[in-house]
Amino acid sequence: MVRLLRLCSIVSLPHRINCKFHHHDVAKGKRLLLSRLYQPRNLWEESPSSLESKSGERTSRSHKLMIKAGLIQPSSPGCFHFLPFTVRSMEKLFRLIDKEMHGIGGQKIDLTNLSPAALWKQSGRWELMGKELFRLADRHNQDYCLGPTHEEAVTHLVSTEGGITYKQLPLLLYQITKKFRDEPRPCFGLLRGREFYMKDMYTFDASEEGAYQTYNEVCNAYSNIFNALGLKFVKVQADTGNIGGKMSHEFQLPANIGQDRLLVCGGCGFAANIETLNADDRDCPSCGGELTETKGIEIGHTFYLGTKYSNTFNTTCDSQPKPLLAEMGCYGIGVTRLLAASIEVLSTEDEIHWPGLIAPYQVCLIPPKKGSKEADAVTVAETLYDDIHSLYHLRDEIVLDDRTQMTIGKRVKEAEMMGYPFVIVVGKKALGSQPLFEVRRQNTGEVQYLSREGVMDCLKNVQVI
Amino acid sequence: MVRLLRLCSIVSLPHRINCKFHHHDVAKGKRLLLSRLYQPRNLWEESPSSLESKSGERTSRSHKLMIKAGLIQPSSPGCFHFLPFTVRSMEKLFRLIDKEMHGIGGQKIDLTNLSPAALWKQSGRWELMGKELFRLADRHNQDYCLGPTHEEAVTHLVSTEGGITYKQLPLLLYQITKKFRDEPRPCFGLLRGREFYMKDMYTFDASEEGAYQTYNEVCNAYSNIFNALGLKFVKVQADTGNIGGKMSHEFQLPANIGQDRLLVCGGCGFAANIETLNADDRDCPSCGGELTETKGIEIGHTFYLGTKYSNTFNTTCDSQPKPLLAEMGCYGIGVTRLLAASIEVLSTEDEIHWPGLIAPYQVCLIPPKKGSKEADAVTVAETLYDDIHSLYHLRDEIVLDDRTQMTIGKRVKEAEMMGYPFVIVVGKKALGSQPLFEVRRQNTGEVQYLSREGVMDCLKNVQVI
Repeated sequence: MVRLLRLCSIVSLPHRINCKFHHHDVAKGKRLLLSRLYQPRNLWEESPSSLESKSGERTSRSHKLMIKAGLIQPSSPGCFHFLPFTVRSMEKLFRLIDKEMHGIGGQKIDLTNLSPAALWKQSGRWELMGKELFRLADRHNQDYCLGPTHEEAVTHLVSTEGGITYKQLPLLLYQITKKFRDEPRPCFGLLRGREFYMKDMYTFDASEEGAYQTYNEVCNAYSNIFNALGLKFVKVQADTGNIGGKMSHEFQLPANIGQDRLLVCGGCGFAANIETLNADDRDCPSCGGELTETKGIEIGHTFYLGTKYSNTFNTTCDSQPKPLLAEMGCYGIGVTRLLAASIEVLSTEDEIHWPGLIAPYQVCLIPPKKGSKEADAVTVAETLYDDIHSLYHLRDEIVLDDRTQMTIGKRVKEAEMMGYPFVIVVGKKALGSQPLFEVRRQNTGEVQYLSREGVMDCLKNVQVI
Repeated sequence: MVRLLRLCSIVSLPHRINCKFHHHDVAKGKRLLLSRLYQPRNLWEESPSSLESKSGERTSRSHKLMIKAGLIQPSSPGCFHFLPFTVRSMEKLFRLIDKEMHGIGGQKIDLTNLSPAALWKQSGRWELMGKELFRLADRHNQDYCLGPTHEEAVTHLVSTEGGITYKQLPLLLYQITKKFRDEPRPCFGLLRGREFYMKDMYTFDASEEGAYQTYNEVCNAYSNIFNALGLKFVKVQADTGNIGGKMSHEFQLPANIGQDRLLVCGGCGFAANIETLNADDRDCPSCGGELTETKGIEIGHTFYLGTKYSNTFNTTCDSQPKPLLAEMGCYGIGVTRLLAASIEVLSTEDEIHWPGLIAPYQVCLIPPKKGSKEADAVTVAETLYDDIHSLYHLRDEIVLDDRTQMTIGKRVKEAEMMGYPFVIVVGKKALGSQPLFEVRRQNTGEVQYLSREGVMDCLKNVQVI
């Protein structure tokens, strides 16, 4: 135990300070200690091959890294428990999405996961979806599926509520909830799972023109989200699949592991999922230039549905001289897939790199090893922790690696595997009259020695959501 | 259309201002307009009896009010879609719970809803839970249930992760996720549903003494939550039911609609669920005083489990000289039930009263009717809206009731049905050289005429989460 560091736990509230051993006296500090965090690492040292054989699933970089770092734990094929670091990152991603959805007038709802079979029979998808639907019956033998998507539910909802008033147009409803799909071969961790978070939005307009404008606005919001994460995505024309509709685009992250084949034109920027083109054709339909093939991970999908569903459920918009069937769009972001895909494309084989904005914690502070020559710098480390903690936006974003029985080197290595955007080491140079701290930036690989002021300057503009 | 009010939609981002008709020019203001909100009210005028016959379920005050106000919409018996006002309130409740759980060192996880049958067979609850479990098989005929609670999953998780290190003790893991129970007779809206949000926490200690202390800390956090909502709850000794364990308490809200029978001692404060006592006995086992019976709605339940589950899954804590089976506790708050129960006990027959902290919006501002004598006060209303909006904590908490084709009186009545804690009317008295605004406080029934400064003063300390 490292009493020097006044071992204390997690974020605390004004009225309540919680101590590591809550049976002890209330501690003075309230620092977030790495040793307290539930982040199982019994797999840290396992080789990827043993992981592969254990899960029986095909693995990917993000899959291996997330398991090894104790971010997720398999529950059944394609279903994962999300552990504390993942939940933090995911909630940041939820907030980013909420912000962009609100920005275009989106209103958040939460539809039931248990979706009555009757709705799916009405749209014809009870048959069409086949084995992809998880089906079950309740104690009264009523049939349900676990919602894999919610066109039926939301269109029915809006129709039973008496249609949409003209003042509400365009109506944009969205949710961020668990979705369920019984994938034939789940694989790659969160990239192709059976139970996952999806942000799905459904839009209602009174005219085609309005619906196209809404479609573009949602696409722009999607671009904003992916840009905020620093992802190099491609927007490609796509097939409408079993969702149906008139037009569709996918947002793809180029990656070798990707399961979609894309054709991209270097000349005019045209890009398409190969499904939408004549497979043999390599000429750009837009400029005649050459198309090159790449693989992609689908992180977003947009559909201009037209009246396919509103017609089925008679969902109308208030209009003169008579109500019109709603022109609909639907839009999805696989939220947990996006999280994993970001790790997939940004990370190295050994080190997780998060999009800075959604890293679980922004800063890991590493004090010297107990009993080492520089052990005295531990008080300097404490003070620096408290200073950083006093920056309002980082108050909940800094972790103290209190495992001072371990060398600095070993802890730095682990911190870099975990991918904290900023790793700050308090070592020998912190002992001088002008203490200097080693600041390692994960995303650029940069290492600098900075004074306290330099550290604060460097951190004060870190973006946090 | 009320151009005067510069019709504009939902919260907007710096880089993007969204207009009601997004095809128009970008508007100058960015006010949140009531007419834009998806809050179906086609049932507003229906009588409760027709609602009752429609759903076929037994109804309660909160059930009727929430349906009538467009807060929820039934999807199937005991399953409800949550509409935008409810989602806002629920997310506030999530934040309140998160704050208190972090305060005692809780770490947030998110376990799968699909729970493999094998785990439930191992604990013996696959049989024991009977028809209450929603069961299903995947395409490979593997059996699952939809998690109604997660003792099995979390205990197994912690054991597969190699047990708990002594530095992590006590370990408190929690989640706020959908749970599923196939209730024989779902009723009363969100009070007894089949698909609902539950906050469930699981704690791990190395000793009985530690586990009792953890138990008490969680109970205190629960009291904090219910107190923050202004609820008069009773903590009673309770039966451990099919969860099992050594000790249990329920947090109950006294209410006629409640399905639990409680015995409370006016003398010493002893309180128990009648299940735990000899049914004929009306003497307080603690002081010998008289017990009086009341009904209650269970909003929280705590269990000291001992080693019941850790023994099944061999979940150990690192300890000297040898690892010990973890002493566990589990703790639940029915989050959507708590929301509905609050409405149940605080509301009148016609008006929703929310716990102030989790009201969907804090303020509704009502400008004058179009074409009325006081119509000129509309600019004063706009300015007041912007002033209130400039209070940082209320920037997302004020709605402008722009339906100025309706009289002030009708809109005030609706606002009071919806239960905004503050309804501010801009009427005749706002036209003078010293404009006065009518401020109606829902929770006290108080009506005051205040100057702009008075209004700002009254709102500046409103608690928002």
